[in-house]
Amino acid sequence: MDRERIWTAALVVIGDEILSGRTQDKNVAEVATWLNQQGIRLAEVRVVPDDPMRIGDAVNALRSTNDYLITTGGIGPTHDDITIDSIAAAAGVPVIVHPEARKMLEDYYSSRGLELTEARLRMARVPEGAELIPNPTGGPPGVRFDNIFILAGIPNVAKAMLQALDGQLQGGRPMVSVTVGAFAAESEVADLLRETENAHPGAAIGSYPFTKDDRFGANFVIRSADGDLARTTGDALTERLREAGFEPIEGGI
Amino acid sequence: MDRERIWTAALVVIGDEILSGRTQDKNVAEVATWLNQQGIRLAEVRVVPDDPMRIGDAVNALRSTNDYLITTGGIGPTHDDITIDSIAAAAGVPVIVHPEARKMLEDYYSSRGLELTEARLRMARVPEGAELIPNPTGGPPGVRFDNIFILAGIPNVAKAMLQALDGQLQGGRPMVSVTVGAFAAESEVADLLRETENAHPGAAIGSYPFTKDDRFGANFVIRSADGDLARTTGDALTERLREAGFEPIEGGI
Repeated sequence: MDRERIWTAALVVIGDEILSGRTQDKNVAEVATWLNQQGIRLAEVRVVPDDPMRIGDAVNALRSTNDYLITTGGIGPTHDDITIDSIAAAAGVPVIVHPEARKMLEDYYSSRGLELTEARLRMARVPEGAELIPNPTGGPPGVRFDNIFILAGIPNVAKAMLQALDGQLQGGRPMVSVTVGAFAAESEVADLLRETENAHPGAAIGSYPFTKDDRFGANFVIRSADGDLARTTGDALTERLREAGFEPIEGGI
Repeated sequence: MDRERIWTAALVVIGDEILSGRTQDKNVAEVATWLNQQGIRLAEVRVVPDDPMRIGDAVNALRSTNDYLITTGGIGPTHDDITIDSIAAAAGVPVIVHPEARKMLEDYYSSRGLELTEARLRMARVPEGAELIPNPTGGPPGVRFDNIFILAGIPNVAKAMLQALDGQLQGGRPMVSVTVGAFAAESEVADLLRETENAHPGAAIGSYPFTKDDRFGANFVIRSADGDLARTTGDALTERLREAGFEPIEGGI
């Protein structure tokens, strides 16, 4: 294996609605998948409440230990949208109204015959020194401040902002994953899984059990930044499963 | 408002499969909802990879700042199931085979004509001093160690283990939430939301926007441990929305 730089990101999901159980988060999986396409590994996620100190602590802890930090949630016009202020405070910079964002909001509201009220203008506020992230859905933009990417919480808006960032972040090789499934109880294949992983340094095998039609099964996911190694390891695992009397199912069950 | 003790818990979700985007987490919402029923507030969630140090750091940081810590994932029989070892190491205690868990596994496998192999016996390992959490689905048990509750990662098994813990954890009053929805753009109601919240100390109002049939709308969720206060605040908000020309929809949209 060549030694190569691994690029990492962390995600801070901001929102009482996730912690109360009211809303099922969808941004973690979306951000994780997108990061992987950019060759960046999602190293940690924290879900924190709408509390400036808690947001600031999570942001500062994770932005210093990762190449990138993404946040979702809390950038709308209402009193509970405190992400911008919390991040600016954590970084020790003032909040300013971004001229370009102000212009976008003015155009947006005037085209609808509406005024740019103080509440609406909140959506143009950014930590001083920040740039805007385009919002292809037409709403207010996201915000990039240093290595922090501040996205909307609504999943389709967050997703559109990520797409606007496609290829903009430096990363390494995307992680390649190969999945093999079998109707085997995990405990029956634990040894061969471990042995196959040990025989292929640089590849990690995850085992994810399920029951289907009252049968035990598991999917085995081989992951590596080295695509050839991932495939070789997948082939080796397939062979070992077959030898052990299980029918391997390529791509998983 | 009477000052009362607020009980909190944190959740550590252990699993590369969540961070890779392969698996959509379902345990956060489930744990959040269950905790609320016990009168315990979910204060933070961290999703960490299958890495002993990362698991240990998250567990130690969160168990000391919350009344309870729950973990999901990584307690099966395969090489990537490292939760027990990681938590024991973080707490500075050895891992032992729990006699009762061993007996349960022996009974389970012998009734199926199967041997208790080393891989299967892994599921009886616990940090020294731990107790078992019943698993009503019939599989291996969860583990309680001090204020840490170690649950399975498979959502229906995690849920069953939580149900087995119903009423076992000391908590306070459950949080009461009242939802009012309206077809209003958030920026049109930002002021009245803030004013209503300010007029009702002890109640928090969250605003969750959506678009439906090309119309802007939002649900407003009033939350308080004081049920009467939550309802009074909901009534006041309903009145304010009506005055502002929006039709309030009880229970949300």
